[in-house]
Amino acid sequence: MKEKLKIGLVGLGGRGLGLLEIVILKMKDIEVVAVCDLYEDRCERAAEAIEKSGGRRPMVTRDYKELLHADEVEAIVICTSWSDHIDLAIAAMENGKYVACEVGGAFSMRECWKLVEAYERTGIPCMMLENCCYGRDELMLLNMVKMGYLGEIVHCSGGYQHDLRYEIAYGEENRHYRLNQYKHRNCDNYPTHQLGPIARILDINRGNRMVSLVSVASKSAGLQDYIRNEKKDDKLADFKFMQGDIVTTIIKCARGETITLTLDTTLPRYYSRGFVVRGTKGMFMEDNQSLFIDDLHRPYETKWEKQWGNKESFTEKFDHPIWKSYLAEGVKEGHSGMDWLVLKDFFDSARKRTQTPIDVYDMAAWMSITTLSEDSVAMGGQPVAIPDFTNGKWIGR
Amino acid sequence: MKEKLKIGLVGLGGRGLGLLEIVILKMKDIEVVAVCDLYEDRCERAAEAIEKSGGRRPMVTRDYKELLHADEVEAIVICTSWSDHIDLAIAAMENGKYVACEVGGAFSMRECWKLVEAYERTGIPCMMLENCCYGRDELMLLNMVKMGYLGEIVHCSGGYQHDLRYEIAYGEENRHYRLNQYKHRNCDNYPTHQLGPIARILDINRGNRMVSLVSVASKSAGLQDYIRNEKKDDKLADFKFMQGDIVTTIIKCARGETITLTLDTTLPRYYSRGFVVRGTKGMFMEDNQSLFIDDLHRPYETKWEKQWGNKESFTEKFDHPIWKSYLAEGVKEGHSGMDWLVLKDFFDSARKRTQTPIDVYDMAAWMSITTLSEDSVAMGGQPVAIPDFTNGKWIGR
Repeated sequence: MKEKLKIGLVGLGGRGLGLLEIVILKMKDIEVVAVCDLYEDRCERAAEAIEKSGGRRPMVTRDYKELLHADEVEAIVICTSWSDHIDLAIAAMENGKYVACEVGGAFSMRECWKLVEAYERTGIPCMMLENCCYGRDELMLLNMVKMGYLGEIVHCSGGYQHDLRYEIAYGEENRHYRLNQYKHRNCDNYPTHQLGPIARILDINRGNRMVSLVSVASKSAGLQDYIRNEKKDDKLADFKFMQGDIVTTIIKCARGETITLTLDTTLPRYYSRGFVVRGTKGMFMEDNQSLFIDDLHRPYETKWEKQWGNKESFTEKFDHPIWKSYLAEGVKEGHSGMDWLVLKDFFDSARKRTQTPIDVYDMAAWMSITTLSEDSVAMGGQPVAIPDFTNGKWIGR
Repeated sequence: MKEKLKIGLVGLGGRGLGLLEIVILKMKDIEVVAVCDLYEDRCERAAEAIEKSGGRRPMVTRDYKELLHADEVEAIVICTSWSDHIDLAIAAMENGKYVACEVGGAFSMRECWKLVEAYERTGIPCMMLENCCYGRDELMLLNMVKMGYLGEIVHCSGGYQHDLRYEIAYGEENRHYRLNQYKHRNCDNYPTHQLGPIARILDINRGNRMVSLVSVASKSAGLQDYIRNEKKDDKLADFKFMQGDIVTTIIKCARGETITLTLDTTLPRYYSRGFVVRGTKGMFMEDNQSLFIDDLHRPYETKWEKQWGNKESFTEKFDHPIWKSYLAEGVKEGHSGMDWLVLKDFFDSARKRTQTPIDVYDMAAWMSITTLSEDSVAMGGQPVAIPDFTNGKWIGR
């Protein structure tokens, strides 16, 4: 195993710089040798951060191709706006670079297939950086499920439930891409944060697969109402946003489970991924941090409020090994450790030249939910088929 | 106003006898003059309860027509099994009797239309006894919404989330009807408990209407697993139940709101109607008894756990007048008072010969969700149209 993995970073907005400064520069076995962004000031800030942390000055470029052609770069991390994720990931694979890509949704089925085919052509792994797959709750539930503690799993729910009104309307970073999504599209534009962990619980692409979905959007009222209250004469005050406030998607799986996903980003609320796992022996609910276990709890005997927060009593027994060792080492930065863990897993795979734990089939399947939900919403909730990106290999994987 | 309203009670199983003994016999202005059930022992128990409470012995019959022909009976209350609700309600209207009917779902669209047309032909009001419309939380939220406190309402969720595994499989009462539903059908078989309160919040049939739905069912695993654990050699141990454990339905409304309904009755869980109301200014969530209000709470400043149960701090200001006066009088029996309140409203309408607060159009629309969800589930989540039972009158009502 080599001493330091040499990586390139493409996209240095809030997320890219954040990952660099908060997580990557603290990893002793990573060297950032190239950074790329269309904006020079961002490149400069990244280069300075690297030098300040004791590293040598990286290659700085506005042209991602230059970065991809640099022999020295072994792996790249993509933190650009959503619409460039897949093109950049494909280009990275074609240049033989291990590639990790920040989360987002797809714009067409065609680009999802192109992503898969680039992997199959090149053999270079591609991992979506779905940090929520490394959340402590999510990993504990994965662990419980694999131990059979919740019985046969029947249904999971979750969503991206995050009041982003300010960021969408006024966030400097997002002016250039998120706002446009809300202006013009109507879909679950950010499905992977809870779909990722659920897909792992339900063995998606590894013995199970998602077969169809329906998606229905509410009206769009939250963003306009917010803008009018914040700034009456804002040029957006009369803009009719196409994005519905709440988009509900129901996915059916080959083994018969259902997954309910919610996009909920333009109404007032507290942050929650609304994670729910339901099995024949028990349930978990994020919104009151509780487990209900068939043998331990009785629906008529227990006052539910007494169980709020009872999750804590299960962590000692059921925390995932990843989190147990992580806690033993001391929690590091980045969304309560999730960013550290997801990047660590990617870098470990790149260093060992092994397959990544989240692979290109997962990335294509998870991202496809956005464009498929867009189709279903447009057709009034029509069910649409979710393709098998593995072409049958999910049965034996 | 007459001294005592004379009523007949049809269906004396657990629910009918319960309402009689716990609620109706305690109402000083109601006289139960006739009781009807196919089982004589049930009739006898009801008659005895009436006599024991100081009333005169009622007419006792196994033939509901006899009860409907009795001149003395002014109103009837139907507590039979689901499949008889609509036929009995129609017969009651045709015999000039005010009719209240316990909750349930429809089996076909045709019977929903027949119900509406019986009302339009006879002019006799018909009310569904949706007690959850009188829940304290539900009425407080209705009050808040009508005061504009939550802004423009965009989305509501709710469901019938009640672990009924024992009752379905072994409940003596239910052997005769609920079990058969789970054996043979796959739909939201009990949609009205949370749809009723949500429909009132969203002005359904009074300025708004439900226009379409999609419904997707998970596999069926909970009931069989339960039976095998309880009694390995049960004759049902190998029965393949058609009813999915979790049925998720998304309803779209004319004004653009979405409603998500969940049927969840065959997996371990605590009881919850999972009531959620979402507006441009705030949200309510039953599962942690909390409100999040745009001006009061900040998603990044407030640790959500601190808000659990904060609903209590809103009751003084926002409790519905119905509940304020009810609490002042002292809470009576029957599902925390809901049964008392719903029956009181029905009996008051019958006594005054006025329209009932929940009317035949509400009953038809709410019950239709069962058969429409059955259609949608059968067609893989296909969207189906929800008819306008008011034939256009919803706009002006």
